[in-house]
Amino acid sequence: MNIVLLAGSIVGSKTRTALEYAERSAINNYSDHQIQLIDLAEHDLQFSDGRNYLDYEGDTGYVTKAVMDADIVIIGTPIFQASIPGTLKNLLDLLPQDGFRDKTVSMLATAGSSKHFMIPEQHLKPILGYMKAQIVQTYVYIEERNFANKEIIDDDVRFRINRLVEDTVTHAKAYKQFQKEKEASYGF
Amino acid sequence: MNIVLLAGSIVGSKTRTALEYAERSAINNYSDHQIQLIDLAEHDLQFSDGRNYLDYEGDTGYVTKAVMDADIVIIGTPIFQASIPGTLKNLLDLLPQDGFRDKTVSMLATAGSSKHFMIPEQHLKPILGYMKAQIVQTYVYIEERNFANKEIIDDDVRFRINRLVEDTVTHAKAYKQFQKEKEASYGF
Amino acid sequence: MNIVLLAGSIVGSKTRTALEYAERSAINNYSDHQIQLIDLAEHDLQFSDGRNYLDYEGDTGYVTKAVMDADIVIIGTPIFQASIPGTLKNLLDLLPQDGFRDKTVSMLATAGSSKHFMIPEQHLKPILGYMKAQIVQTYVYIEERNFANKEIIDDDVRFRINRLVEDTVTHAKAYKQFQKEKEASYGF
Amino acid sequence: MNIVLLAGSIVGSKTRTALEYAERSAINNYSDHQIQLIDLAEHDLQFSDGRNYLDYEGDTGYVTKAVMDADIVIIGTPIFQASIPGTLKNLLDLLPQDGFRDKTVSMLATAGSSKHFMIPEQHLKPILGYMKAQIVQTYVYIEERNFANKEIIDDDVRFRINRLVEDTVTHAKAYKQFQKEKEASYGF
Repeated sequence: MNIVLLAGSIVGSKTRTALEYAERSAINNYSDHQIQLIDLAEHDLQFSDGRNYLDYEGDTGYVTKAVMDADIVIIGTPIFQASIPGTLKNLLDLLPQDGFRDKTVSMLATAGSSKHFMIPEQHLKPILGYMKAQIVQTYVYIEERNFANKEIIDDDVRFRINRLVEDTVTHAKAYKQFQKEKEASYGF
Repeated sequence: MNIVLLAGSIVGSKTRTALEYAERSAINNYSDHQIQLIDLAEHDLQFSDGRNYLDYEGDTGYVTKAVMDADIVIIGTPIFQASIPGTLKNLLDLLPQDGFRDKTVSMLATAGSSKHFMIPEQHLKPILGYMKAQIVQTYVYIEERNFANKEIIDDDVRFRINRLVEDTVTHAKAYKQFQKEKEASYGF
Repeated sequence: MNIVLLAGSIVGSKTRTALEYAERSAINNYSDHQIQLIDLAEHDLQFSDGRNYLDYEGDTGYVTKAVMDADIVIIGTPIFQASIPGTLKNLLDLLPQDGFRDKTVSMLATAGSSKHFMIPEQHLKPILGYMKAQIVQTYVYIEERNFANKEIIDDDVRFRINRLVEDTVTHAKAYKQFQKEKEASYGF
Repeated sequence: MNIVLLAGSIVGSKTRTALEYAERSAINNYSDHQIQLIDLAEHDLQFSDGRNYLDYEGDTGYVTKAVMDADIVIIGTPIFQASIPGTLKNLLDLLPQDGFRDKTVSMLATAGSSKHFMIPEQHLKPILGYMKAQIVQTYVYIEERNFANKEIIDDDVRFRINRLVEDTVTHAKAYKQFQKEKEASYGF
């Protein structure tokens, strides 16, 4: 399968740091899959102007096509103004309405304190659900104090990221199985 | 598997009507499973007083044990005051914190208008997720105008309920498969 | 004005403890107002069966009428299953659809950890808004560790409760002013 | 007072059309106030890179300063992917954390169907509350079928926009009164 780890912010380093740890976890355990980390900070995206994603060129075309080609998307996001950043929402706006159909999507959030723990649940999941994602229910929420020198310094957080990667891949496999059973039941 | 269809309200007939249709759909297609419709209107539940569900007797004990014994729960709910009814929330309060762990849970909502379409997404899903349910993302939302004489009069609604039942069962099967694979990978 | 402090749970003591502190704060500063603490734990409420609140007798009739007669309602609630308790939701179900019209309503929540800080925002405010409340935006969220021996042991929490009471009353006064201006502009 | 009407999208015409109607309503009734319509489609904004809004130049600096100088902000937004557009969220990210402190903010949403009626409540209000806005509870939600030839063709919608403008200004006046009373009580 094709795994994309998507860092949804252009500010700060913590989401990137956490996703890099997730990427290494994926490489260690799922080296037979394609694994790609895309950091919005490294790409110069346009604001969605309503066109189909295939009609964008340059970085906007590159990133949207990479996400659309994925079977699995692990979204990393900070919390800005009690919600997801405009940069991440803009990327989601660039994708089709059902852009996550048949994709397994999981979430990893970084934040200043635990007060915003419910934000991925309340702001991001409903968007992913609307876009038809197969959502991994449990997400990893990492607080500022779990980072130092661009490393995760908390064993429990590392454990939870490893488990998130594993659950996401297993979930995607189970979903493929679910699809096969459904198709079989219709005699496709 | 053990399928419980749960009508979460003690007022009105529409949620019950919709769940009865879902029950017939389940019986027609999954007669090898146990199928039970529980309507809170037919049971005299206490308010949760913080005890473990096993310590309740009478209707409260009966209903909570039936839900806890299920592999699949299809929750039917009306929308009251822009959220789920107190009767349904009270039942959820009676269950353990992780009461839906390893259960597949799907939702069917009835409402006066389409304005409250997002309520199951925003009010019920986060609760189910907190209780560790495997949530079927797509839910069936039925408006008052789709009912007449305690029957669903809209073919599309009937089609969507049939598909909800099918997706729920297929989802539960895929989840069992997911669990087996996880256990196998750990050598359990 | 008529101020009701409403403890929305029948389990535990922390919400009651916090509301009692708020009640003392109200008595100290607004002794010219009517002030009443209603604790659902002391009343035997029925589940809402769809009737108008005026048609209930006994405790259900008493509590609903007391809330409907209030100009100000300060709701105290614990967090159960990542939302408000069924007992509180049931009380709200017992009230008319626009039961908080022209009332100023504020919130005080108690919880085990700061992870559920957004629950009053995401679960309770939309219900209050639907019921036409004038909502005091800022709420007081109190964690378990801020209590000992049925007292609040944190000065900052006490300060925030005092401020909540003050803001709620000032907000209610400003709203009365707002109404007067609106009526004047229509020549009522 | 200084009233800004903010069109939060760069795609489509309906939000702009609705805000232009609101602008005319404001001009007709509150000509003694400063009134300005800012349409993000007419400005080339950068993505927030974490700097203070005063450090941006060009369109980004212009728009953020205009919003920060407002006493009243009427936000117009379409619904994209079951939430607010990335363009609007980016503007909010550009503002300080408490950027709406002491400002009265109201909302007007345009959408394809009534199914997303709760999105302003669930996605936008919590952000505005976090940013310390004085939120006008009731918002105007306008469906596609209420527009034709870049005009609002529904009398009820026009009535509701007029009332929104009026309520927003009256709310702002009442809030100024609330502030005065608070300051007086502290002897400022």
